[in-house]
Parts: sequence; C-alpha cells; structure tokens
Amino acid sequence: MRTTTAWQSNKGTTDLERVTIERRELRDDDLAVRIDYCGVCHSDLHAIHGLVGKPVDGLVPGHEFTGTVTEIGPAVTGFAVGDRVAVGTIVDSCGECAMCRVGQENYCLNGVVTTYGGTDRVDGTVTKGGYSREYIVRAGFAYPLPEALDAAAAAPLMCAGITVWEPLRAAGVGPGSKVAVAGLGGVGHMGVKFAVALGAEVTVLSRTPDKADDALALGAHELLVTTDEEQLAQASGRFDLVLDTISAPHDLAPYITMLALDGTLSVVGAPLPTEVPLMLLTRGRRKLSSSGTGGRRGTAEMLAFAAEHGIVAEVEVLPSSQVATALDRLERNDVRYRFVLDLADLDVPLTN
Amino acid sequence: MRTTTAWQSNKGTTDLERVTIERRELRDDDLAVRIDYCGVCHSDLHAIHGLVGKPVDGLVPGHEFTGTVTEIGPAVTGFAVGDRVAVGTIVDSCGECAMCRVGQENYCLNGVVTTYGGTDRVDGTVTKGGYSREYIVRAGFAYPLPEALDAAAAAPLMCAGITVWEPLRAAGVGPGSKVAVAGLGGVGHMGVKFAVALGAEVTVLSRTPDKADDALALGAHELLVTTDEEQLAQASGRFDLVLDTISAPHDLAPYITMLALDGTLSVVGAPLPTEVPLMLLTRGRRKLSSSGTGGRRGTAEMLAFAAEHGIVAEVEVLPSSQVATALDRLERNDVRYRFVLDLADLDVPLTN
Repeated sequence: MRTTTAWQSNKGTTDLERVTIERRELRDDDLAVRIDYCGVCHSDLHAIHGLVGKPVDGLVPGHEFTGTVTEIGPAVTGFAVGDRVAVGTIVDSCGECAMCRVGQENYCLNGVVTTYGGTDRVDGTVTKGGYSREYIVRAGFAYPLPEALDAAAAAPLMCAGITVWEPLRAAGVGPGSKVAVAGLGGVGHMGVKFAVALGAEVTVLSRTPDKADDALALGAHELLVTTDEEQLAQASGRFDLVLDTISAPHDLAPYITMLALDGTLSVVGAPLPTEVPLMLLTRGRRKLSSSGTGGRRGTAEMLAFAAEHGIVAEVEVLPSSQVATALDRLERNDVRYRFVLDLADLDVPLTN
Repeated sequence: MRTTTAWQSNKGTTDLERVTIERRELRDDDLAVRIDYCGVCHSDLHAIHGLVGKPVDGLVPGHEFTGTVTEIGPAVTGFAVGDRVAVGTIVDSCGECAMCRVGQENYCLNGVVTTYGGTDRVDGTVTKGGYSREYIVRAGFAYPLPEALDAAAAAPLMCAGITVWEPLRAAGVGPGSKVAVAGLGGVGHMGVKFAVALGAEVTVLSRTPDKADDALALGAHELLVTTDEEQLAQASGRFDLVLDTISAPHDLAPYITMLALDGTLSVVGAPLPTEVPLMLLTRGRRKLSSSGTGGRRGTAEMLAFAAEHGIVAEVEVLPSSQVATALDRLERNDVRYRFVLDLADLDVPLTN
C-alpha cells in the first residue's frame, strides 16, 4: 500500500477533513497520477448528502480530474511518466459484456467501477476519488490530455462535458439542428458550448431573463424565458433536442411541448422517477431519453473534439483547502460555472 | 344534404341503434364512398364509453374502412367512380403548418379533423364515422386500395396498421433489428406482421405461454413469457424496439429494462400519463416514445408495403347488424384479431 493526502467527508458534512488515505500499489496495467486539478460536480454533493441511503463515512469525492503520470505499470503502453492525463467518472468495467464491447463501459452489465464509492474489481476495496493528490488507475480509463487544453479548465470535461456530449451525439446534432438547453450550470454551459461547436442553433431556457448575457457569451443564439407565456407558446414544436440539465425535480411537460417531430427530451440533470404525460409524446412522435456520462470511445472522441474547437469549462479555480467553500457555494448555485480544486496545496505539510 | 344509414351510440351504450344520418353534399374536392367494410377499433370503445369527458349522444364510430367510390367532386383527380379506396383516422387538416408540410397531417398544429367526433373545417359540423354505408371525404384523405389486398382484411390497416408502421419506421427497423411486441390484439398482431416483413427478429411478449402458437403463426420468432423471472432476466437489454400495444394502464419498467443501448419503448396502446423510472432510461441511453396513427405520406407508404408483402389483418367479419356483439366481445378481448363489419346489410330496409 502507498498513501496520499485527500479531502474526506464524514457523516454528510461538506466541511471536509484533510486525511491520509491508502492507495493500492500499481498493478501491471495501472498508472499513478499526480492529481493537479479536480472539478466539483453536483453529484459530489449528492454523494456527500447520501441522496440514496445514508451519508457515508470516509467518502472522498471527485470524478473529473486532470494530472500528471508519475509511474507506470510494466504492461502499460501509450503512456509515459510526465504525460498529462484526464480521468472521469469510471475507472474499470468487465470489458466483456455487450455494453463494454461497443465502448459503453459506463453501462457495463456486470457493474461499472465508479471513480469514488465504487468497488474495485480486483481487491474489493471501495474507491476514493479525485479530491486527493494521487490516484492509481487502470491505464485504459485514463485519457491523454490534448496539448491545446488548459489542465484546470479541462477537468470538468470528464464529467460535465461527456454528460452532454453523449446525448448530443446520440441525437445526431449537427449544422441546422435546433437545440435548447435547460439549466445553465456546470453541465448546461458545457451543453451550450458543445452544441454550438457542432453547428446547432442553440437556445438557453431560463425562468428569468437575467442569464441572457451569459447565454450569448457562451455562444448561444438566444435566451428563452420559460415563465413568459408568449415565448413559451412560440417555442412549441421547435427543438430537435432539449437537453435538460436541471438538477432538481421538475415538470417535464413544458420541455416535451417544445419538441419538434421526432424530437428528443434528454434528461441528464435529475434522472429520478417522474410522471410523464405520454400524450404529449404522442403529438409529434417525440422521445424522452436519459443517459449517464459516457464510455471510453465517446470520451476520447469528446476530448479530441474539445481540443479541435478549443472547448473547456468556464471555471473558478480554488486551492483545495477551500473545498468546503466550493461545495457550499455550489449548493447555493453561486458559481459560474464550475469550481475546480487545485490540489497542489496538499503537498504542503500541515504545521499544527 | 344527403342521407345514409349508420350505427349510432347514445349515452355510452354499445347496443348501437340503426339510424338515418345526414352527410354533406360533395364539395369540389370530395369523394362519395360506399363503405363496404369497417374495422372495430379499441378506441371506438373508448369513444363510446367517453374515456375523456362524458359519453356522447349521436356518436357514429368507425375510422378504418374500405369502400367504393360512387361519386367525385369536379376538382378531384386520381380517382374515378368504381375505384376501391381506403380511409383511416383523419379526414382533413390545415395543409399549411409545419406538420402538414412534412406529411404528418395527423399532428396538424391547427387541429386535425378526425374521422368521427371531429369538427369539419368548412361547416363546423361534427364528423360521423365509418359504421355507416356512405362517407363523404376530401379526396386527399382517401387512398387507392391496392389490387392485391382483400377489402375486408385491409380495413384495419388504416388504423391498426398505420399505428404500428409509424414507430417501426421511426425506429429504423429493418433486417437484423430486434423487435418485441407487447399485447397481441388488433394493433399488436399488425406490429408482428409488419416487423417480420421489414426483416426484424420478432418476439411476442405475453403474460402466459398460451399465445405461443398464435405468435409463431403470425411470423414471430418466439414468445417470451413476462411472468417468468428467468425469461425476463434473459431479455434484459435485448431489443432495439419494444412496441407496447397494451390498451390498459400498466407498468412500463419491465419493457424499458428489455431495451438495448439506444433502444426505444414505443407506447401506442395506452398513451396516458404514467410514472416513468428515468434511471432505467439512463442505463443504456434508452428512449420512451409514443405516436398516433400517421400522415398521408406514411399511410400511402404503408399500403404500398402491405400490398408488396401481402399484409392484411386477421379478421372476423360480421354483418354490421352484429356490431353490438363485436363491441362486447372486443371488450372481453374475445377476438383474433380484429372485427370487421360488413356494411352491405344497411342496404336492406328494416321491415318492422
């Protein structure tokens, strides 16, 4: 066993504790990664609060990070010490099931291993995430970070980015597509950027007109105020894809009504059970869908596209010692658009 | 005004009354059609019982019929007296909205005119359906009945047939597709026939093994018993399309679980609001959809395909005087697979 320093939640608190944790010794196909930057995702909050079941002691969140390879296992090819890499929400899968075989390891039928809170397939330990200085990962689940991308701003690509990339690609979004994005947070703002870069005409949906400037600055073509009955009526039947990134439970009916013939409402923010008015789907052969991050193939494709188009997240970088501030402000939606922790301060020993 | 004889429901009764009703005089672009055969659809029962709102007096059901042109308006081209024609669930639309322009008049944004219980766009009268000897219809909503198709057995193509054709086509079903059909009634059995003819591998889903012989006789490759836990588990993630034709409210979760990556559950039997476990959609980027009959383009395409592949409904033809028997037996699911009324008996005057 080796050790590293990490930020750990106990009993549901967002006031994380700085602790020393164990990491496994490298297996043949492992990389050791010095984590430089880790994004703060809304699902980290869900995990801390124990959205499903009770809050967990010893939780180390973090599943979108970038870093530097410091050591490689003997069977690893394609990576060298010093390489910049990125790691996302999943770190292992069976590799053999129907989903793994088509590059959708995120849906592994034998149980994907999530970056934190997952169960390692070899030794059965619970995985601990990227709010830490080092991670040991199977090389197949690390991705070379393209030269063109800033390491801090690229970290959120690994969860927020792939989360929007998959439904945009599944819906075949391209030039001429009409895409609406509901919810302009960490995930939503990546949706706007990727949809714009894919050539779509992009509308941001918001309850207030306040976000109009932000929406346009991100490249959206307009903001539609969903509390304005007239604007809502005009949007009826208009979009090929509505990307719903709202993290709280909400009524899907207004978004379904905005779909064109064969249009898709993709709910990626709050995939909880909900009452769906099927008759609204009937009127125009509309579809309701959802997806969860992505597999290796899609992630690599997304990173290449991001590098080509200069797409990264809009981030506020904080030293990792301010993780509690980041979590609390995120909880109040006080961030444009994603907090990223700089883990370098974990190299400095505590003095007390 | 001209008159014809029809079967009419009052106050929700299935014991229809034989009455004389008025039909409009032909407009320039109208056809007069002598109705020879009219299918008995489950939604006729819904309409009689007043599924939405109260039962209506003076209701003449029937929206899938075949017949013979007896008269044409002066502006009609492409039809001649004596031609065999088919008419389905819609008889007019605005022709100008986005849906009409792409041939999906069934979703006309200005309100489609349904074959019965609709409101005529010209004179505002309520339309009366095909349980009658004559119908006056805009020529654009009548279809030449292909020579190859039996007039009685083809009548259900116009509702049951197009209802399955649209989702099969929207899902891109073809050779190699894996399609499951839930509910083996009037609509479901057409789903099996069309999916098989499109080259798909077709599975019928049923609560009991009783229907295995029927399923295979219709061309399905197998029957899956949904109450058998083992069979259910094996079906997980298997189908590209599950066509759900069950007419009663039911849990969608087992059908969503059967979907492969990017698979679609298309609910065409009971499009009522329902609780949907979104997380099941997430696991495999699955889609929930619904649709309602079809437009002119799809209907013409469906008829051509049916003629080419010799597809008609399995029908039990009854003289129209036995319409009450047909409705009551349909309510008990006692039909394989569709009742069709022979309207010729309406030519015989009542003797009492």
